[in-house]
Parts: sequence; structure tokens; C-alpha cells
Amino acid sequence: MSNTQHLTIGSPKPVFPDDGILKLYSMRFCPYAHRVHLVLDAKKIPYHAIYINLRDKPEWFSLVSSSTKVPALELVKEQGNPVLIESLIICDYLDEKYPEVPLYPKDLLKKAQEKILIERFGQFINAFYYLLLHDNPEQLVDTDHYAGLVVYEEELKRRCTKFFGGDSPGMLDYMMWPWCERFDSLKYTFEQKFELSPERFPTLIKWRDLMIQDRAVKCFYLDGQTHAKYMNSRRSGQADYNMLYNEAKRVKLG
Amino acid sequence: MSNTQHLTIGSPKPVFPDDGILKLYSMRFCPYAHRVHLVLDAKKIPYHAIYINLRDKPEWFSLVSSSTKVPALELVKEQGNPVLIESLIICDYLDEKYPEVPLYPKDLLKKAQEKILIERFGQFINAFYYLLLHDNPEQLVDTDHYAGLVVYEEELKRRCTKFFGGDSPGMLDYMMWPWCERFDSLKYTFEQKFELSPERFPTLIKWRDLMIQDRAVKCFYLDGQTHAKYMNSRRSGQADYNMLYNEAKRVKLG
Repeated sequence: MSNTQHLTIGSPKPVFPDDGILKLYSMRFCPYAHRVHLVLDAKKIPYHAIYINLRDKPEWFSLVSSSTKVPALELVKEQGNPVLIESLIICDYLDEKYPEVPLYPKDLLKKAQEKILIERFGQFINAFYYLLLHDNPEQLVDTDHYAGLVVYEEELKRRCTKFFGGDSPGMLDYMMWPWCERFDSLKYTFEQKFELSPERFPTLIKWRDLMIQDRAVKCFYLDGQTHAKYMNSRRSGQADYNMLYNEAKRVKLG
Repeated sequence: MSNTQHLTIGSPKPVFPDDGILKLYSMRFCPYAHRVHLVLDAKKIPYHAIYINLRDKPEWFSLVSSSTKVPALELVKEQGNPVLIESLIICDYLDEKYPEVPLYPKDLLKKAQEKILIERFGQFINAFYYLLLHDNPEQLVDTDHYAGLVVYEEELKRRCTKFFGGDSPGMLDYMMWPWCERFDSLKYTFEQKFELSPERFPTLIKWRDLMIQDRAVKCFYLDGQTHAKYMNSRRSGQADYNMLYNEAKRVKLG
């Protein structure tokens, strides 16, 4: 397991060799940062991951990126070490800059249609996080949290391909994945009634099983129980950023 | 003045010759649709504009575009007449599909940086519309509505160019413009205290004066008084979509 210690107030700025390798400022449980990890891993682009405690950010972080948001990608080879923010802008940049494993269709219309589906997924994200972070999810048992997924179920069925990208995952697959990886956490937090219905989403459930086998997805994968544990800490107001780091340390010491 | 009658419930679907010309579904006072008009006009791409009454949409519109949102661009030359939505996705598509007048920098890093500034402008839009649509703007007199513009003032000053795009407007200029065109409406609606300060924003005010001279901006330009009149109708709950159409008709008849 890589070092997922989250740097915080007082943490010194990590020093890296002058190796020209991209630096990704991230948070281990941030689904937006997860998107960038997926694209970097899918394209086999080497990068240094630097994890930031988002509650108590290290003092030097605002000098790296004035927005102090993650994900933030530092382009160390470019003059002035510019930093890109916004997950979709970073991912689109990477796709154009490293075209060897193209993630969008070549056809401009199809590319625009993928972007519309990525944009529209944002509506589902809002509904899903409303459920994940709700104080009393029992109140939401009659709400259809998955209504926003129906269009993706139908679209993938219509395409008759393993992934939205065809035989391998494309940009739409990777931009949706971080939230879909977290579906499996619901059974640990809430009762089964919040789970994805196999009758309603047979194609997406098959897709999820295939995505878990993907090399890039495996690189940053966490199981449902781990995601549930982090979300519980976040809901309690004490997001446990260093959960994995402390566990790994315990295992090492024990 | 082109026909800006907004089609509504009961309006027949307009029939166009089979001329292969793009169809833009729009609303005359929608700043997001305005973005697409600007890019089409900047690139001199011919198009048919079809204006939609957003309160009472014509029945056939959901068959054209299931989202029933504007702007929506119908690509009549493509199989199945696909429709693109989302102003930024449409404008990026047009820029790639019609590369003759490129609106983004060629350099991929600079292009990503323009996109970050476009994305960030969304925060200013929210603050600005909060003011424009507020029931009692007097309550907001101590709020700094223009804080989100400071970064653009500084950026343009740093670039030392007429426009963000250089000698001519680029994508960032056009994506910001619809809201900036509306600044001038504030003096007709509110008191002078809500106006853009020449001491604080000297570069952006010079930029605005240059933008008004741009050919594409002129194609769809409305003055502050007209914008103010529309916003007043919208604030009262009876958005007067056909304001310009009815005025033109009155002038014709009178």
C-alpha cells in the first residue's frame, strides 16, 4: 500500500527528486480526485500522489495551488510549475496531452455526447451524496435515489458493449466509476433497501463487475466496507483521512 | 431584427428547407444560449435560431431534445438529427468541428487554463444572478457582488492584451460576455451603487468597450435598458420572452 498519510498543518512540504514526474495533490477518499487517479493509471502515466488533509491543510498548499482544492495536478516539467484544478478539466487535458490510450471517441459528435453524459452524471452525484451524508436516511426510504442512473442503464444496454467506451473503459466509464465503486458501501451503512436493484439495473451491475477487473480501477480500488467506514467518520464530523495509513502502520507494527 | 417570436404551447414546429444548416434552439434573453450565438457568429457558421418560451414550451420540443433545455443545437447533417446541450459542451464541439477561427490557444496547458477560468466564472455568475433576481436588492448593498471578478481584472492586466484571447476575443471572452453585457442593465434597475467600479475594474471596463465593437458581439447585442426591462419582467414572475418581437411588430404596424 502506498503512503496515504494526509499532510496537514505543520507537515513539511514533501521533497521529490527532480524527475519531471507529475504531482497529484489528492485526498484518498475524494471521488473527484479518484477520477484523476483512474485516468493517470489507465494511461500508465507515472505520478507522485500527495495526500492533503482537507480540514487542516498544510500551510504551503495555498502556495502550490491558490484554490487549495483537490484534485490539483502540478505540471513540474512546464515553466513555473503550473497547477491544473477541476477533475474534468484535468482529465481532458491528460487525454489530449497523452493520446496513446485515447479515452474519448475520435468522432467529435460522439465525444460531445460522452461529455453530455458525464455532465449529466453530476445530477446523480448530488442525489447520491444527499443520501450518503443524510443524518437520518430512514426518512429517505421512499425517495428514488437511483432515478438518475436509468439513462445510463438504458444507454449501455443500447450500446451492447462491455463498457461505455467499448471493449475497454473510456472517459465516461472512468468519470462515473468513483461513485459506482461506493454503491457497495451502502449495505454496510444502511439497510439493504438502499442497494442497487438487480431487476432495475442488470446492465450496470454487470458493468460494475467488469470494471472491478480493470487494471486502472484495481490500482486505486477500495472495498465497500472501507468506503462505508470513511463515510461514517465523515458523517460524524471527523473525517478520518488517515484511516488506511494508520491501519497499515498498525499491521506493520503488530 | 430577426424573428424573435418565442414558440409556445400550440405553436406548430417550424419547417425549414432541407439546407443542412444547424438549428439552434434558444431563448433571446438566456445568457447560456447567448454563448452559443456568439461562437456561431464568431466562426461565421450559418444557423437557424428557433426561440422557445421556457415557461410554456411547445409540445414537440421534448421530441427534438429530451432535456427540453436551451441552448440545444440540432446537427441536421448528422444521422438521426442528434441534439447537443450544455453551452460549454456545444461551444467546445463547435470549436473543434469548425477550426477555421480557433477560439482556444493551441497549447494544451494554456487551453486547460482558459477552461479553469471559464469554469470559475460560474461562481461569479451565481453571485451576480443572486443580485439580479433578489426581491429586495437594498438588503444586499453591503455585499461584494463583484469579488469574483477580481481574478479576471488581474489576469487581463497581466496578459497586457486587448482581449483574453489576444488581439481578438477567444473562448474565455465569449463565455464571460453574456453576463458582462448585462452589467450595464444594473443602472436601470438598481441605484448606481451596484455598478462596476472604474477604480476597481479599469482593465475590464476597457475590455467591455472593446468587446462591444466586436462583430460577433454586435450580432446579438442588446443594450442595458432592454436587458433591464426583461429582468424586471422575469423578477415579477412573468418573463416577457416576446418583448422584442412585440416591439418590432408595433413599430412595423405603427
